[in-house]
Amino acid sequence: MTDGPCGSYSLFEIATRFGGEISGDASTPVSRMAPLNSAQSGDITFVTNARYQKDLERTCASAVIVGRDLATATDIPRIVCDNPYAYYARVCALLNPRSDYLTGVHEQASVAETACLAENVSIGPGAVIDDGADIGAGVRIGAGSYVGRQARIGAGTLIHANVTIYDKCCIGERGIVHSGAVVGADGFGMAMDEGRWLKIPQIGRVVIGADVEIGANTTIDRGALEDTVIEDDVKMDNQIQIGHNCHIGAHTAIAGCVGVAGSARIGRYCRIGGGAMIHGHIEIVDNVEVSAGTLVPKSIHKAGKYTGIFPMIEHQEWSRNASLIRHLKDLRDRIRTLENESKGRRKK
Amino acid sequence: MTDGPCGSYSLFEIATRFGGEISGDASTPVSRMAPLNSAQSGDITFVTNARYQKDLERTCASAVIVGRDLATATDIPRIVCDNPYAYYARVCALLNPRSDYLTGVHEQASVAETACLAENVSIGPGAVIDDGADIGAGVRIGAGSYVGRQARIGAGTLIHANVTIYDKCCIGERGIVHSGAVVGADGFGMAMDEGRWLKIPQIGRVVIGADVEIGANTTIDRGALEDTVIEDDVKMDNQIQIGHNCHIGAHTAIAGCVGVAGSARIGRYCRIGGGAMIHGHIEIVDNVEVSAGTLVPKSIHKAGKYTGIFPMIEHQEWSRNASLIRHLKDLRDRIRTLENESKGRRKK
Amino acid sequence: MTDGPCGSYSLFEIATRFGGEISGDASTPVSRMAPLNSAQSGDITFVTNARYQKDLERTCASAVIVGRDLATATDIPRIVCDNPYAYYARVCALLNPRSDYLTGVHEQASVAETACLAENVSIGPGAVIDDGADIGAGVRIGAGSYVGRQARIGAGTLIHANVTIYDKCCIGERGIVHSGAVVGADGFGMAMDEGRWLKIPQIGRVVIGADVEIGANTTIDRGALEDTVIEDDVKMDNQIQIGHNCHIGAHTAIAGCVGVAGSARIGRYCRIGGGAMIHGHIEIVDNVEVSAGTLVPKSIHKAGKYTGIFPMIEHQEWSRNASLIRHLKDLRDRIRTLENESKGRRKK
Repeated sequence: MTDGPCGSYSLFEIATRFGGEISGDASTPVSRMAPLNSAQSGDITFVTNARYQKDLERTCASAVIVGRDLATATDIPRIVCDNPYAYYARVCALLNPRSDYLTGVHEQASVAETACLAENVSIGPGAVIDDGADIGAGVRIGAGSYVGRQARIGAGTLIHANVTIYDKCCIGERGIVHSGAVVGADGFGMAMDEGRWLKIPQIGRVVIGADVEIGANTTIDRGALEDTVIEDDVKMDNQIQIGHNCHIGAHTAIAGCVGVAGSARIGRYCRIGGGAMIHGHIEIVDNVEVSAGTLVPKSIHKAGKYTGIFPMIEHQEWSRNASLIRHLKDLRDRIRTLENESKGRRKK
Repeated sequence: MTDGPCGSYSLFEIATRFGGEISGDASTPVSRMAPLNSAQSGDITFVTNARYQKDLERTCASAVIVGRDLATATDIPRIVCDNPYAYYARVCALLNPRSDYLTGVHEQASVAETACLAENVSIGPGAVIDDGADIGAGVRIGAGSYVGRQARIGAGTLIHANVTIYDKCCIGERGIVHSGAVVGADGFGMAMDEGRWLKIPQIGRVVIGADVEIGANTTIDRGALEDTVIEDDVKMDNQIQIGHNCHIGAHTAIAGCVGVAGSARIGRYCRIGGGAMIHGHIEIVDNVEVSAGTLVPKSIHKAGKYTGIFPMIEHQEWSRNASLIRHLKDLRDRIRTLENESKGRRKK
Repeated sequence: MTDGPCGSYSLFEIATRFGGEISGDASTPVSRMAPLNSAQSGDITFVTNARYQKDLERTCASAVIVGRDLATATDIPRIVCDNPYAYYARVCALLNPRSDYLTGVHEQASVAETACLAENVSIGPGAVIDDGADIGAGVRIGAGSYVGRQARIGAGTLIHANVTIYDKCCIGERGIVHSGAVVGADGFGMAMDEGRWLKIPQIGRVVIGADVEIGANTTIDRGALEDTVIEDDVKMDNQIQIGHNCHIGAHTAIAGCVGVAGSARIGRYCRIGGGAMIHGHIEIVDNVEVSAGTLVPKSIHKAGKYTGIFPMIEHQEWSRNASLIRHLKDLRDRIRTLENESKGRRKK
């Protein structure tokens, strides 16, 4: 599956870098990260939850990353730490360094004379950097990507192949933008005028903070008059649509296929489940979790988890129940009638 | 946010172009369009609804566009008109003219010898115009876009970067196609044959009228045997999917993330809310509004607004109510039993 | 609509290739496939369902493909077969052969020296084949597409324009990948660590079987540690999102706009309706049908059809009923109260 060992590290070397306490042989070498169930000798694995204890007992891994609750649940050489999931992320990155890329501008790229490239950039074949664009140090622009006029890409950002960044949009430092993403297309604004639509110019930008990841084929529209803003450390999955003039607070994570209509304001540390649809011109406070598939029609003023999905059932059962949904008011009225009768009897 | 003044116009110059009546100093110069709340001196703003009257009183704009209902609601120099939103669109376009683009074919574009380019076209770097394609006057094709064999792009249309137009598809005049849009991919047609899928050739085209805007990453499939048709002045947001052989009537507006299954027929002047899903082989008449997130399982024969979404509530409350959805029939039956008992008592 | 006749075949020639029995004049020539209602002289059409018998009676086609149930329903020369829909697919492909493409590498393509191209490949202008990629015999890579390092494309596969295949991903034989599709972007994995997100490296691949079709702008994420797997003959429509480590069984068909969250496992011969959302880490057995717009929150252990959608109604009626959804528990409690009263009365 992977290339195999990119290098081998002892638990001692790992704990020296990332902390945690070693139990067992600190010289145990590991060269590959693998899941609990398929790990083999030479691999390191991780457990994030006590419910996987049975799998932990059976694993063939040479070492394991565990939380304090599982510190003594195995005899395998292990690193005990506070946050085994984050620890796993760090070790996995150590064992799987990003591939090297040649720096420089590929001869089949097209870079405008007025564009400004900092040191150590890598511009792939077919990539286009338009007039006045500003590409920060160490930025990598994948094959076929387009960076528009006066757009700005912060240092260390990775733009994969076939991405489109429209004119004047800004992406912060250390970001990742996956293929097919489109940043800065026109917002959906038009006025009905004598039976025809009149386009409203979309002259705001998209301004994206640092450490933001944007999934494949996600689209973020530019603002109508003011900017669309994505704060630092926002994480967006694939196929997301962010309308014009939205504001997404720092550290918020948005799962795939979510739609956020124009001028919605989502707070910090929110989690929006896959396929959720957020209405425009509403506000969601910090620390709100929206369940997958939920439509959010109005502002959410209190942190918490919100849901609105029709429960899935076998189709025939659904047919029977769904038709009754349309008659809930009738059911309610019939209950009222019975209650009134009952009350009448009691009065007698 | 914007480049700042692209030119300055007096209210008199504006009203001369676009009509309306001036109240206050007609020589007031404005150079930028800005929202009511953030407008500053030198800016023109607009109000479309009396509920923003408080904001109107506080605005720092030098001039404002208002409807007749608000003609006397401010002392600021103003243009009074019938449709302030459309008026805003026009003034905003005047103050923010589209950037100039060089005409001609970029040396890193690829144009087939048999393609036909009218005057004043602009073909960006990496764009590909395939055999027999026909590109109308003043068309702009962005970097990395592909126009297939014998496809036709009408005069004045703007194709942004990284768009794909498949063979033989037609786009009308004055259209706008945003990045990542795909026009004319194969419809989803296959026949089950002895346990395997057999592809059904998709030999129809996509035929798109004039003044159509297609959002980023929207996909419109070609027809199976006959064409998929999008009539004039249809406006489509991002991430929309239009299945094969759909027919979308003129002036209909479709918000982001909508899916329209094959052979659906949507009328004129409809408005489809974000994330709505329209079944295939159904018909929706003119002037229908479908709420965001609504699934449309059958034809709609009467103009009006239609909705079908599970109301969002706090998750715990949802859990309690959702489980009862599966038992609506039981509840109905229990009500019936009570009613029968009650009837029985009355008969006694 | 189509180019018109690409060649003419008699019913005899057709039945010799594809089987079935001819009724009527076997020498009848046909050159175009057309729908029942718009077919003209020289066209062949098809009927798949007895409910179209009226249309069959009125058709102007020169010949028709029918099932055994309709063998005598018309006098038109016809081919009678077991599966007229599959037969139609075959005849349609015969009458509409794929356009020829020049083989070879376009001078504006970019092919790494370490890439391996088999015979008869066609690499379009602006396409990029990166280091160590392996392109099978007869593969066609459209304009502007990117094939990443060490990616592998099986023989006979057609990659349309502007597709992105990330490093190390594998696509099987005879596949079709439509424009804007992205195969192998990073899965959505991150760990919260002291108030910030930490990226989890996504080092698995996407491994796609033979005869798979991937729709326009569909995205399939690479696995976190192990691979995301799409088995043979899976058919995916446009705008689909498949999360990391999903496993989709052979012959399953997924309609447009579906989202499948990470580590979901979908069986063989399933049919997932448009816009359905499948939760992560669940399992769906073989032969399950999920209705369009349904959210699947948990595993499905039994074949069958499953649905969970709020029925669409006129907005005003919806408002009245939707508010009652939030009070289902109250309604249930009121019914209980009435039942208890009734029971009390009966005991007296």
